[in-house]
Amino acid sequence: MTKATRTRRTPEERRAQLLDLGVQMLAERPLAELSMEELAGAAGISKALVFHYFGSKAEFQVAVASAAADEFFAVTEPDPTLDLDGQLDQSMRAFVRYVSDHREGYLMLVRGVSGGDGALGGLFTHTRDRFVRRIVDKLGPVDVGAPLLHLAVRGWVAFAEEVTVGWADDPTTSEDELLALLRDSLTQIVALALGVPAGSLLT
Amino acid sequence: MTKATRTRRTPEERRAQLLDLGVQMLAERPLAELSMEELAGAAGISKALVFHYFGSKAEFQVAVASAAADEFFAVTEPDPTLDLDGQLDQSMRAFVRYVSDHREGYLMLVRGVSGGDGALGGLFTHTRDRFVRRIVDKLGPVDVGAPLLHLAVRGWVAFAEEVTVGWADDPTTSEDELLALLRDSLTQIVALALGVPAGSLLT
Repeated sequence: MTKATRTRRTPEERRAQLLDLGVQMLAERPLAELSMEELAGAAGISKALVFHYFGSKAEFQVAVASAAADEFFAVTEPDPTLDLDGQLDQSMRAFVRYVSDHREGYLMLVRGVSGGDGALGGLFTHTRDRFVRRIVDKLGPVDVGAPLLHLAVRGWVAFAEEVTVGWADDPTTSEDELLALLRDSLTQIVALALGVPAGSLLT
Repeated sequence: MTKATRTRRTPEERRAQLLDLGVQMLAERPLAELSMEELAGAAGISKALVFHYFGSKAEFQVAVASAAADEFFAVTEPDPTLDLDGQLDQSMRAFVRYVSDHREGYLMLVRGVSGGDGALGGLFTHTRDRFVRRIVDKLGPVDVGAPLLHLAVRGWVAFAEEVTVGWADDPTTSEDELLALLRDSLTQIVALALGVPAGSLLT
């Protein structure tokens, strides 16, 4: 093995590197347990320099949570070259795998911070809103103004989170069975909210 | 009006009175904002005496949250003299009204504490478990060992909480439309989890 070349990083690169490391750490522990010392050690810089980039541990936590939310949203982005059924299937599979692989950090996003202080609580709401909008946008030629639709899709996102976290804790069924439950429940719930037969959606 | 007679209360009565007052305060503000001073004032006793009964603000918060969870569970208890459809309807109506009337305290129960410290986080999980068990017990002659059933019902409870809180914030549809969505989504989700037609349930 050759020794890695030490490169001088720009401030932007350094900040991005620290955020990446923080997001990786979230896979194994809740946000509140991220250690600035450990982060500095992993990055090979001083703790003082970490504080230089983020000001405080609280600011670092918000930045990491925000980066984790962006990553989560990006990896679950539906592939627009697939048909709608295919997009739903692929996006949900990515959702289930991400939650399984990042259980601690994910729980932080969906639970720990949701009733928490301003910045993290707002991030939680914003992230859930993005998922709701993505799903509603994908539904295609439905009445997106139907009063129950946004409410029902928002509820379904909570359903999907709870079911997936529970399954990741104790996977008593196959991933395919879980995915079928997620997919079919979305179809049924959207159909109920719109007052149309479930068979008329996603076809 | 006659002046209320001052009665000397037993320690148990005093403790119960303070908990009642705490639960009432939860209707208007989150748990973290319960004030021991205000509580003492409302009960007409000294702050020192409040601390005598509960030890610390943290212990008082756990006791109030626990009492609120018990109250919430009790008011949503299905009336066993009704048929199953009737029980579902009446219990869900009580659920929706309680959440609407106790929005702040309810959010505390389902969100604020869920990722929080040990005692409150455990209370949240325990309360959700009680709802799941009640629903599964009511389902009657279904395969209660079906691996997806508990997971799906637990997810539905999260769905119902999210939808009801969202509706209470911005009631764009009637209570009856909300109740229909809750009832029909439960039937559909249970049917999906059991792999049976929805029409075969709750009849």
